[in-house]
Amino acid sequence: MLQTLSTAFIRTLREDPADAEVAGHRLLVRACYIRRTAPGVYTWLPLGLRVLRKIEAVVREEMNRMGGQEVHFPALLPADPYKATGRWQEYGPTLFTLADRRGNDYLLAPTHEEVFTLLAKDMCSSYKDLPLTLYQIQTKYRDEARPRAGLIRGREFIMKDSYSFDVDETGLDASYRAHRRAYERIFTRLGLEYVVVNAMAGAMGGSHSEEFLHPSPIGEDTFVRSPGGYAANAEAVTTPAPESLDASAEPAARVVDTPDCPTIDTLVELCNTAHPRADGRAWTAADTLKNVVVALTHPDGGRELLVIGVPGDREVDMKRLGAAVAPAEVEMATDEDFAAHPELVRGYIGPAAVGPNSPARRVEVGEDGREVLTGSVRYLLDPRVVDGSSWVTGADEERRHVLHLVKGRDFTADGTIEAAEVRDGDPAPDGSGALSLARGIEIGHIFALGRKYAQSLGLTVLDENGRARVVTMGSYGIGVSRVMAALAEANHDSRGLIWPIQVAPYHVQVLATGKDDAVFSTAAALAGELDAAGFEVLYDDRRRVSAGVKFADSELLGVPFTVVVGRDLAREGTVEIRDRRSGGRRSVPAGDAAAEVGAELRAALARVPDGAGRLDSEPASGRG
Amino acid sequence: MLQTLSTAFIRTLREDPADAEVAGHRLLVRACYIRRTAPGVYTWLPLGLRVLRKIEAVVREEMNRMGGQEVHFPALLPADPYKATGRWQEYGPTLFTLADRRGNDYLLAPTHEEVFTLLAKDMCSSYKDLPLTLYQIQTKYRDEARPRAGLIRGREFIMKDSYSFDVDETGLDASYRAHRRAYERIFTRLGLEYVVVNAMAGAMGGSHSEEFLHPSPIGEDTFVRSPGGYAANAEAVTTPAPESLDASAEPAARVVDTPDCPTIDTLVELCNTAHPRADGRAWTAADTLKNVVVALTHPDGGRELLVIGVPGDREVDMKRLGAAVAPAEVEMATDEDFAAHPELVRGYIGPAAVGPNSPARRVEVGEDGREVLTGSVRYLLDPRVVDGSSWVTGADEERRHVLHLVKGRDFTADGTIEAAEVRDGDPAPDGSGALSLARGIEIGHIFALGRKYAQSLGLTVLDENGRARVVTMGSYGIGVSRVMAALAEANHDSRGLIWPIQVAPYHVQVLATGKDDAVFSTAAALAGELDAAGFEVLYDDRRRVSAGVKFADSELLGVPFTVVVGRDLAREGTVEIRDRRSGGRRSVPAGDAAAEVGAELRAALARVPDGAGRLDSEPASGRG
Repeated sequence: MLQTLSTAFIRTLREDPADAEVAGHRLLVRACYIRRTAPGVYTWLPLGLRVLRKIEAVVREEMNRMGGQEVHFPALLPADPYKATGRWQEYGPTLFTLADRRGNDYLLAPTHEEVFTLLAKDMCSSYKDLPLTLYQIQTKYRDEARPRAGLIRGREFIMKDSYSFDVDETGLDASYRAHRRAYERIFTRLGLEYVVVNAMAGAMGGSHSEEFLHPSPIGEDTFVRSPGGYAANAEAVTTPAPESLDASAEPAARVVDTPDCPTIDTLVELCNTAHPRADGRAWTAADTLKNVVVALTHPDGGRELLVIGVPGDREVDMKRLGAAVAPAEVEMATDEDFAAHPELVRGYIGPAAVGPNSPARRVEVGEDGREVLTGSVRYLLDPRVVDGSSWVTGADEERRHVLHLVKGRDFTADGTIEAAEVRDGDPAPDGSGALSLARGIEIGHIFALGRKYAQSLGLTVLDENGRARVVTMGSYGIGVSRVMAALAEANHDSRGLIWPIQVAPYHVQVLATGKDDAVFSTAAALAGELDAAGFEVLYDDRRRVSAGVKFADSELLGVPFTVVVGRDLAREGTVEIRDRRSGGRRSVPAGDAAAEVGAELRAALARVPDGAGRLDSEPASGRG
Repeated sequence: MLQTLSTAFIRTLREDPADAEVAGHRLLVRACYIRRTAPGVYTWLPLGLRVLRKIEAVVREEMNRMGGQEVHFPALLPADPYKATGRWQEYGPTLFTLADRRGNDYLLAPTHEEVFTLLAKDMCSSYKDLPLTLYQIQTKYRDEARPRAGLIRGREFIMKDSYSFDVDETGLDASYRAHRRAYERIFTRLGLEYVVVNAMAGAMGGSHSEEFLHPSPIGEDTFVRSPGGYAANAEAVTTPAPESLDASAEPAARVVDTPDCPTIDTLVELCNTAHPRADGRAWTAADTLKNVVVALTHPDGGRELLVIGVPGDREVDMKRLGAAVAPAEVEMATDEDFAAHPELVRGYIGPAAVGPNSPARRVEVGEDGREVLTGSVRYLLDPRVVDGSSWVTGADEERRHVLHLVKGRDFTADGTIEAAEVRDGDPAPDGSGALSLARGIEIGHIFALGRKYAQSLGLTVLDENGRARVVTMGSYGIGVSRVMAALAEANHDSRGLIWPIQVAPYHVQVLATGKDDAVFSTAAALAGELDAAGFEVLYDDRRRVSAGVKFADSELLGVPFTVVVGRDLAREGTVEIRDRRSGGRRSVPAGDAAAEVGAELRAALARVPDGAGRLDSEPASGRG
């Protein structure tokens, strides 16, 4: 396949696009791979489409290899199945919804569990029809509040989603493991480093899930690893609760004046100066209990305030908190919220005003027979706030705090919550050592869903004994367009993109410089020879463009190899082969160029990992 | 590629689906190629997806061959560009619209002229950047009032749409012709008979367009051809107006009582009996003028009544009328409409009550300075109602008609309209003979758009002299999923589908019958050999399924060749090769089977037309 640059629909940009925050996105736009059509909605230009199709081909091959069968669902789906599972509501404003001309509700599917379940229900009746894995590579829609970083978080994006159907847990486990292996092969073949971490299931539901994260400083996810092999998304990290403490020697709680203490630091300083502890230990931020007011928006639209108590030396991590309260959405409480709750004295909130400690707390029985807490907002504590622990915290009056307030003795809470930030050095929950943190891009996610969807939608099969069994399912996704963004991010330098040859839009670029007709005819012949040999060739045949612009474009586009046909042809009879990644350059006689380049390309293609090396690999994380 | 049927996601149905009106649709559902997800919204099952991909590949190859460059636009588009061109409103309820979480308007694109124009504007600045042809194969959305016949008229469907950009008419003409040739090649390669006919541009706008119709009794379009080579969609046929007549000898108009004349036939009969013509010629239905009341709904939502006068021997063709009044939508007037217009005496409407003949007619000047007709509904006439022609028509009173009402002498109209049915034998407008009618499925449409979109959206380039020139465009579509439906419709019998080998989901099916292990091992080996030779093989390896069911499934699925391995293997050492299309069967020694089948498949593949034979073909219609 030979494409001349003079006729190609490629117009590189010298300037960075205004809206591009990350390097990979900037380069994909500047090098003419994609264009923004609306926030989080992109158009694939010819170069981008070529890379995308190569990524899709790898995904498709590995899904076929593990026994997946490809189907293709509509993006436009009727609402009813999503109402049946509750996701029509749970997804909230992230769901694009519309009505057709008859007023029937539809959605643009964010993911397809419901209709895959219904298809399996339509087609399968017996355990003999299982196991079954179906997949599609398809366009998905999510009305993200904050689309970001180009293809990293879009509102229209391309996903490979697959679904496994099994009659029992053993089958689900096998399907899950087969997907895990397929994903390892896919990312290895694509040359994309990945880490497999425990994850929260989020709005998907289900019993168990893992994420494939590509370690990257631009990643939206934080993950942790321990020396002993624990790996998890920070959202999924559980805090090992310390033992209860003996507070019998702790002084009685005492309210003190704390003027001019707008921060934890100034409060600690004042306490150390004005109220030193009897045993001489200095007060630290870790002795303070910070009570943070947040507002939940439940899927039914109801708004609820929540007070969260965390040790004062830690911040509330809104992503961890968001995962803990899903499907509710969470934000910091607003001025209106505080105005509606005068008992919450901003900056001085203590346990006494909230949760079961509040004299206003009432327990009522709702219409559905369940207990409803009213009168005071719910109060949830970090797991480190154990019984017997003593705290400096707000006294619910302006400029006053309380010392020696002991959990279990002086206050209690409605429960615990995983909302505090995870920090480098925190202990792993499984005792496998100190955690270290890094950032990653979520490129894959595998869920052991279990029976949630099959139960809601009535997917059963008859087992060997003729009994109806609810099918157990898995759901597995790869963000195909996001993988392209991750590859661009992982493979670039200041001058442009550097594609791995297995996903590059072309294998080689032939570049003619100068005005010498002999140069152009030699270059054209070389491009033709390489094309005839089965390589994908981009030929920069532009006549009125300077060599400098051509070199800059070549580096920006990021094709793995470039052959420069220029002045040296007449002088030395040579052309230059440039390796975009190593920067290596070597001159070869023009007559040998096709053979030399062909050998170089074949060698590069032979070095592409085939993914097989990581089959059944343990531990759970690997490097592609 | 080898697929065993025991593990394939294929469950054939014995019963026809309730909602399938046409044979091709019934078979695509029964043979498990597609499933309905919502009205006009289908899921592609593995077999269907394989056929679809093969059709797409042919389209892609020919678009690349003619110099098209592939891109991929979002389906979810911001409304603004469509508001700028007026199509946001013109499309009316056929457009799926939605708002995002910020309340911004979006649409699911029915076709992409606007954003392609904007992309060209973004990327092109000089005449040197043109000519340019871009295309995509992409999912489109139209909220059809009446989705029909499965993939024939869906609400989510797959289309190849391309757009040409040229600096002048000569360029547009070349781009248009290149597309026409590419389409001829595509349909020829797919083995799909087609006719190229003149067409109406409809909501697309533009100066000139042609349709590729696949002749089929289930087609929604009616087209005409003449012996002299005229071919047009019935919507686009213009009626040659006869010469004006000399009415000087015509008697004066005369109102007569016409009791008990509910139909044209009874009216004609009464006239011949009670009011015979002086010259002895019998009255016929062609002497009557039928005035039909219809209601237009304009894109802005406004409703307007219209009275259309056609010779009484012709019906109003609502499709022709719809095309004539587009982008307004048209329906028959309702009881409410008549109630609001007491001057329209149902069954007895005559010219005197409508249009410029009505004493109530007023001409006012609107706010925009243009004349507005008020007081009476507009009155449009069939072009055959020429000056001097004399008619029997309604007298605007119950049970009374008027005779000898002469156009030009006794009444006039607001204009003419192409609304009367076209009939076999009508003269071609270009004088090339009598028209014959047939029905067809619109599989392609090519439009010389001109400058409408470029003008609305400001797409200009600098010409050789540095002057800004508005670009002239073409837009070209192929209904890819509809092509699959047309192929199914054109290639089936009572027992199932009969795919042309170039689009068949598999080249050959190997079918093992009985319980003999030797049969299954021979069949498996044969399937493996054919797979290794590069053919696409479906192997029916099911053990507990009867031979009858397997044969029925095989014929239903429609794979071109089936090799039956069964009883004859032990008895004669032979297997049977069956040709699905011809019904031919021949026995070959089992040992020769792979070679024999391979030769048969290679011969069949070699017979596939390559489309080149029809390059630059004239006249405008061909047979694939």
